[in-house]
Amino acid sequence: MKESDKSLGVAVLGCGSVGSQVVRLLQEQAGDLAARVGAPVELVGVAVRRLDAAREVEVPEGLLTTDAAALVARDDVDLVVEVIGGIEPARGLILSALEHGASVVTANKALLAEDGPTLFEAAEKAGRDIYYEAAVAGAIPILRPLRESLAGDTVTRVLGIVNGTTNFILDKMDTSGAGFGDALQEAQDLGYAEADPTADVEGFDAAAKAAILASLAFHSRVTASDVHREGISEVTAADVASARDMDSVVKLLAICELRPGADGGEDAVAVRVHPAMIPRSHPLASVREAYNAVFVESEAAGQLMFYGPGAGGSPTASAVLGDLVTVARNRLAGTRGAGESAYAARAVLSMGESRTRYHVAIDVDDRAGVLATVALAFAEHDVSIQTVRQEGRGDDAQLVVVSHEATDAQLSATVAHLRTMDIVRDVTSVMRVEGVAE
Amino acid sequence: MKESDKSLGVAVLGCGSVGSQVVRLLQEQAGDLAARVGAPVELVGVAVRRLDAAREVEVPEGLLTTDAAALVARDDVDLVVEVIGGIEPARGLILSALEHGASVVTANKALLAEDGPTLFEAAEKAGRDIYYEAAVAGAIPILRPLRESLAGDTVTRVLGIVNGTTNFILDKMDTSGAGFGDALQEAQDLGYAEADPTADVEGFDAAAKAAILASLAFHSRVTASDVHREGISEVTAADVASARDMDSVVKLLAICELRPGADGGEDAVAVRVHPAMIPRSHPLASVREAYNAVFVESEAAGQLMFYGPGAGGSPTASAVLGDLVTVARNRLAGTRGAGESAYAARAVLSMGESRTRYHVAIDVDDRAGVLATVALAFAEHDVSIQTVRQEGRGDDAQLVVVSHEATDAQLSATVAHLRTMDIVRDVTSVMRVEGVAE
Repeated sequence: MKESDKSLGVAVLGCGSVGSQVVRLLQEQAGDLAARVGAPVELVGVAVRRLDAAREVEVPEGLLTTDAAALVARDDVDLVVEVIGGIEPARGLILSALEHGASVVTANKALLAEDGPTLFEAAEKAGRDIYYEAAVAGAIPILRPLRESLAGDTVTRVLGIVNGTTNFILDKMDTSGAGFGDALQEAQDLGYAEADPTADVEGFDAAAKAAILASLAFHSRVTASDVHREGISEVTAADVASARDMDSVVKLLAICELRPGADGGEDAVAVRVHPAMIPRSHPLASVREAYNAVFVESEAAGQLMFYGPGAGGSPTASAVLGDLVTVARNRLAGTRGAGESAYAARAVLSMGESRTRYHVAIDVDDRAGVLATVALAFAEHDVSIQTVRQEGRGDDAQLVVVSHEATDAQLSATVAHLRTMDIVRDVTSVMRVEGVAE
Repeated sequence: MKESDKSLGVAVLGCGSVGSQVVRLLQEQAGDLAARVGAPVELVGVAVRRLDAAREVEVPEGLLTTDAAALVARDDVDLVVEVIGGIEPARGLILSALEHGASVVTANKALLAEDGPTLFEAAEKAGRDIYYEAAVAGAIPILRPLRESLAGDTVTRVLGIVNGTTNFILDKMDTSGAGFGDALQEAQDLGYAEADPTADVEGFDAAAKAAILASLAFHSRVTASDVHREGISEVTAADVASARDMDSVVKLLAICELRPGADGGEDAVAVRVHPAMIPRSHPLASVREAYNAVFVESEAAGQLMFYGPGAGGSPTASAVLGDLVTVARNRLAGTRGAGESAYAARAVLSMGESRTRYHVAIDVDDRAGVLATVALAFAEHDVSIQTVRQEGRGDDAQLVVVSHEATDAQLSATVAHLRTMDIVRDVTSVMRVEGVAE
């Protein structure tokens, strides 16, 4: 592409940890960006809440404004980077930017997971791009591989560690034996968790990302409300120890699966976020601290994994700038990239219909026939057992049962049944199992 | 994108293990491909050497031809997939296809590494695309992330395990203690190595991929002849054991580095393929058997890794089809993707100028002052030592020295010097060290 004389104007909305790095890179790499885009890319405005706030970057004189709405409507703004986050005013600003003819790059997972189709339709109508690589797993290129590299293949499963805070906490629990509370405290002390950790710890952040991943992987509309969500606040040191005994590790996973319809029925999609045991030999098991990774299975390519930093101003800004180069090139070429692909319009299964496997640890009376009685409870719910380990411990014994795949409804009914049985003193750990071939 | 009535005609050149899977997927996924491209994609011809050869796929009646040259010139061919491999006739066919107005997808690493710019210029002139994701690391999306996702960042280093055969052999040597010969034999028995394993074992295949990776990562032209190449046929069981003692593992790495110029001089590029020790804690160390992985370091994104099957008909076909969808979409939109990006035109350093670190194991006389004498030899070549481990063994002793970073010329001169010293009985292992922070 020959370099153009006309420069492209960029407006950045938000100048927090990501926005300030976007502003920095736009200035430091101006020469490279111009060469890669084919035209200069010029920062023309930065919208902030307060002009006098402390910032990680020096914004050139005169570019700061508190009037984001006026900024996105300006004629000299060709590209808008939205890194404010949250639903409003982000949504309104993105829609206005598109209507005024700008292309948009956003890192806003919450908005995309709640109302992505509204944004995609607005972009389609305006003939502009909306790109959002930074919305999932920070710097890790995962959305572009899903929507482009694997466009000739059939993705069957995505397993993602897409929240660094919870991975840090679970990793600490695994390596130090700490309980959830202590590990959370350490994450907060080190800046990996916020003072109010709810969005991370309860899986809301991961659920938004799961919806985005599932939409792209399965060419269907999946929103955050479609995602079954369980966080890690109830994961105990005993669960983690139980996993260790199984040569497994507990991870908070975003799971997106294509489920072939029975008897020639239509394929459906299962999307959920919950803690799960995975074998230590699984590539995701070695993802430590606050790193992210996304494991993808597809029919032709087989198993792929994408690994890297899932958050942080500078890594997220790298993803934003990569998208910015693409939408800028499209802009110069008078075209746009592939828009939303939801043609498959697959149904989303409820959690009860989703198929999973359970690991259940049970304290039982240590007497003859206990194992048979417990096995019968599984059988009554049509759940097949893969392994049972029995450990006598004086008065009582512990049974650790790992099931074969069954519907989550069957499995949770089995656990509820176990809790009512006389010989069962306590169900000490219930955890789903992932990353194991059936 | 609305679906078009006009279908796009695809010609496949070559129907071996990759070509036959491309043909299969084009037929099996026709509906999905049409939806994702926005128009039907129709197989219109398959060029083969012999019409009556045994094939993994049934090619529809009338599509097989031995006249590849006539096929690529046909008016109904919009897209050409080249999976013949080798330099000719592949190059001539690709150039002819572009001249006749087709867009091209190729998996031909040897051709791209030898003469990529000729192909890129022909594509530019024709206003068509040439895409080649499948040329490096099979199904792993690595070229698209480098040229698009990281387009707003500065890549500083790429470390790749990009040859499955050699990774399988080195993994066997590590896990079983086998020598190179036995591990190669096992690889051949299992179909991971060819009867003539030279291209894999001596690093030619990896060197071609290194040239392609370096060209994209550093926006410069790098050809196979620029790549310093050492294979694994001289890696001994002793080397592997010595690595194990260092809690490291030996891998054949494709290494592409951006080296900042000294004193404000221009940046340059170092590109090489050789066996190297990496710590077991490095993400690449856990890449087992014939899998591939590419580790990327960039200024803003930090450390990323891409992992998956690096070869095989079906995974490679997945990468080909992903590219096919992109070039087909571009075709329909009347545009083309980003062409060659070589604006930075960085110089390629010779191996002697490249900076590396050495691990050297030396059998020495066990007498006082030996360590000092050896240390002096390193100092004479201006090589700084990071660690020395000394093990007395009766009559003689072994020294294991790991250097700090120095030029390869300094390091190899040091080793040559050591070999001439009276107190040195034998230099038992020399191996470069990678994946360690300096």
